[in-house]
Amino acid sequence: MSVRLGTLLDKLAPELQPELLGDPELLIQRLAPIDTAGPADLAFVSHLKYLNKLAVSCAGCVIVSPALRAAGLARGACIVVTDPYLYFAKLTQRWKQLHQPSSYAQPSTLIHPSAFVDPSALVAGNVSIGPFAFVGPRARLDEGVRLGAHAIVAQGASVGVGSRLAERVTLGEDCSLGQRCLVHPGAVIGADGFGFAPNAGRWEKIEQLGAVRIGNDVEIGANTCIDRGALEDTVIEDGVKLDNLVQIGHNVHIGAHTALAGCAGVAGSARIGAHCTVGGGAVILGHLSLADHVHVSAASVVTRSLLKAGHYSGIFPIDDNAAWEKNAASLKQLHALRDRLRHLEKQLQSQPVTQAGTPFQSKEKS
Amino acid sequence: MSVRLGTLLDKLAPELQPELLGDPELLIQRLAPIDTAGPADLAFVSHLKYLNKLAVSCAGCVIVSPALRAAGLARGACIVVTDPYLYFAKLTQRWKQLHQPSSYAQPSTLIHPSAFVDPSALVAGNVSIGPFAFVGPRARLDEGVRLGAHAIVAQGASVGVGSRLAERVTLGEDCSLGQRCLVHPGAVIGADGFGFAPNAGRWEKIEQLGAVRIGNDVEIGANTCIDRGALEDTVIEDGVKLDNLVQIGHNVHIGAHTALAGCAGVAGSARIGAHCTVGGGAVILGHLSLADHVHVSAASVVTRSLLKAGHYSGIFPIDDNAAWEKNAASLKQLHALRDRLRHLEKQLQSQPVTQAGTPFQSKEKS
Amino acid sequence: MSVRLGTLLDKLAPELQPELLGDPELLIQRLAPIDTAGPADLAFVSHLKYLNKLAVSCAGCVIVSPALRAAGLARGACIVVTDPYLYFAKLTQRWKQLHQPSSYAQPSTLIHPSAFVDPSALVAGNVSIGPFAFVGPRARLDEGVRLGAHAIVAQGASVGVGSRLAERVTLGEDCSLGQRCLVHPGAVIGADGFGFAPNAGRWEKIEQLGAVRIGNDVEIGANTCIDRGALEDTVIEDGVKLDNLVQIGHNVHIGAHTALAGCAGVAGSARIGAHCTVGGGAVILGHLSLADHVHVSAASVVTRSLLKAGHYSGIFPIDDNAAWEKNAASLKQLHALRDRLRHLEKQLQSQPVTQAGTPFQSKEKS
Repeated sequence: MSVRLGTLLDKLAPELQPELLGDPELLIQRLAPIDTAGPADLAFVSHLKYLNKLAVSCAGCVIVSPALRAAGLARGACIVVTDPYLYFAKLTQRWKQLHQPSSYAQPSTLIHPSAFVDPSALVAGNVSIGPFAFVGPRARLDEGVRLGAHAIVAQGASVGVGSRLAERVTLGEDCSLGQRCLVHPGAVIGADGFGFAPNAGRWEKIEQLGAVRIGNDVEIGANTCIDRGALEDTVIEDGVKLDNLVQIGHNVHIGAHTALAGCAGVAGSARIGAHCTVGGGAVILGHLSLADHVHVSAASVVTRSLLKAGHYSGIFPIDDNAAWEKNAASLKQLHALRDRLRHLEKQLQSQPVTQAGTPFQSKEKS
Repeated sequence: MSVRLGTLLDKLAPELQPELLGDPELLIQRLAPIDTAGPADLAFVSHLKYLNKLAVSCAGCVIVSPALRAAGLARGACIVVTDPYLYFAKLTQRWKQLHQPSSYAQPSTLIHPSAFVDPSALVAGNVSIGPFAFVGPRARLDEGVRLGAHAIVAQGASVGVGSRLAERVTLGEDCSLGQRCLVHPGAVIGADGFGFAPNAGRWEKIEQLGAVRIGNDVEIGANTCIDRGALEDTVIEDGVKLDNLVQIGHNVHIGAHTALAGCAGVAGSARIGAHCTVGGGAVILGHLSLADHVHVSAASVVTRSLLKAGHYSGIFPIDDNAAWEKNAASLKQLHALRDRLRHLEKQLQSQPVTQAGTPFQSKEKS
Repeated sequence: MSVRLGTLLDKLAPELQPELLGDPELLIQRLAPIDTAGPADLAFVSHLKYLNKLAVSCAGCVIVSPALRAAGLARGACIVVTDPYLYFAKLTQRWKQLHQPSSYAQPSTLIHPSAFVDPSALVAGNVSIGPFAFVGPRARLDEGVRLGAHAIVAQGASVGVGSRLAERVTLGEDCSLGQRCLVHPGAVIGADGFGFAPNAGRWEKIEQLGAVRIGNDVEIGANTCIDRGALEDTVIEDGVKLDNLVQIGHNVHIGAHTALAGCAGVAGSARIGAHCTVGGGAVILGHLSLADHVHVSAASVVTRSLLKAGHYSGIFPIDDNAAWEKNAASLKQLHALRDRLRHLEKQLQSQPVTQAGTPFQSKEKS
């Protein structure tokens, strides 16, 4: 469905001071990447490094930053805006609103006939409950909540205003989800934490008596798991974004607006600050603390608390397999190599050094 | 719901020789962590390192070891017991029994009207089957089994006495689960193993003809996957504990009372001994053997068999990103560095060494 | 159920030139591993390294390569074939066909009475829809499609001829699956990609407007997630095999006949060529390109594009924990060690070297 450019942009994000340099009557068929966009497509360029793509793009119109104003105009129609990426994000929301209005509209109350809602559940107005969904005893669904097919809201759990649980989501007993949250298919909120006491070679279960408490505007990816606390609650603060297949252990606390990419794992009782980012596949060990604004690279393993904001990494560099084999073998002797180096240093110190050679003062060219 | 301390402790774990030094009439409102416990809460201290927390805790009563008897008494009411952590585990079980009696009681037979049970399935007494659960042809549910909402017990599969499958669990065709097992939401037991033969640039499927055989007292985490065997069965022995999002490949054999933390992965045909622990995110490659009592650190990659009990690790140390970049770059030259070091050593050996310097006998200060 | 050897082999894979050296009347009870096979079992040996297992095997018949013809015959009945592993794969398929004919037969149309199929969905003939499955508005199921219990085919999604979705699979809105695909339980195809624009310390959602497009003969493991594209589609080409718990980010493109093992993760907009293999737990960062025929070892992290076919690795070698601790500590000083080594080299160059010692010409013995 094509949309007039003027309609698309109307009153969109005025705080970003968008300025259309082109014809508002242009019909836009898609939002598209800069390199595949055609004459009926709207694209964006956020980084100067894509300047070369801008010059040759066939896009009908391109969103650019003020720095690219001249380059954008030289090419054709453009929208100049202070933050093209953010403006583009807002555009995707409007696009979806226009094309899939049902995703945004307040539903009128609609409970699929195949769903099962316990009579003691509290269901507010304008709630939509999909096929085969189950809402347990004393569960609470606030205004505008949507449950996808096969969603489960267990006994005593609650979902805040405007939140959406996609298909096959489980919100466990007594767990709570704030407002405007979005939970993707297969996510499990409130399974038991992994707690056992050793007992003569066996494991004695520690019943997990806490719950999971999730703030507002949280997004939780597909098949992601957030365990309930052992004694107190596992807490996810406002605005946190969790990608798919993320594991959050019991008693974890994640500060506001922190984002974890796919396959990341956070072990029990870890405390992650606000405004952090954790790369895909990273692992954070238990009982550690991460300060606000800590950024962990993908696949890195956090083995100690990181109490200073900053960017941290620990990745074995990839190499062709033969080179890796040699370096990995040497790595197993690294401590010994260090000792041998130290021996050599001592040996040389004890030798008469020629006057000409004062190597430690010589300039190193990296 | 408050509980008399005396009621809570009554006949609990006498083998641990608990001794209450305080008023059995005290009403306990929660089991709580030592540092947040209030005057109506019961807490525990298992390690001497938490001694400082003990001294300042406001807990109504604290469980301590005999070594902390004096410190515990100095603070107020306490329970002295040989293994505080184990005693605490048993307490959580009693607490849950008292507060959520339905989780422990034998259910009377209760099949939710929305569930579908094939007429040829064998369902014992006191079985509970949740909403939208599916029990396939010739499946067998023993005494006291509970299936959560949307649970699936496929054709020919069987569940032993007292086991519980939470919501959205799949137990695949002909797979068997022992007694008193607990399977968390979204777990998949018995999907096909990953087996293909190369065929002129394509992959030819090897049908997976085995099943999964799981012992007694096994706990399986949310969204964890255990694949069926290619020819014989994948086997999980008694008392094994698997956390969330764990992947167990086909033909794997896991010995009794071994525990794997979240996001761990075990490739096909690996054999893990009894009483092992595998940290979160660790990977065990295929066809390897791990002896009993092997402990693998989180995020370590087991690339060879570990035939001796012990603790093994392989983690790239995390560092600030700039330092990591330099060290990672050097690591790619490590083998060359080793060679250069060896050259230097040879060179020095061939030089006349002063009598004063006999560096290899000098004492190294670390 | 026993099967005549002759029946099993009849017209099976003539292109592999199988030759039975033994009695076709032998009744085969199982396909079995070479080391546990009994006199009524059929086994195979694909590698010369298993020659010793062949000699002592009790198998009723063994599939061997031409190179093992003599050894096979010396032991008893055997089948000589050019590619034993591929031949064995074909045998597993026949075995399953004979023993679980329903898995292979075209189903007659069978919609479980508990399933819900939207009236606007297009359902071809011979389709089977399991209990509690949901087929959304305008979804399309081609000839011979099977949906397991609780499977979800959302609005506008389509499934090609002969594909099977196991229990609890989600195929999201407007996503398409080709012919003869097999999707295992809990897989989620078409959840939102992980896209957010920073907005004054918060995250602004980028609506994910693309879909997922999957080719023919693709297999997708249990609880694996494939996200929809941000603007264009995420694409999985023909013959790709994904194991369990794999994460595929938005806009990713995976070339034909590539296989990813369990727990692998591919970040957004990465492009993986055809005929690649990615080991379990490996991570591929976003926006990278991998050429055709790239092989990534398990648990390796691809941090740069790999534009040449080959085998790449990056794994911290596992060691006993004490040794690892020392080497990891040294690794954090590796760059400094390199500098110290360089200083020593300079120092030695500036010293008078004895004529006898020309160490850089001396032969290194590893």
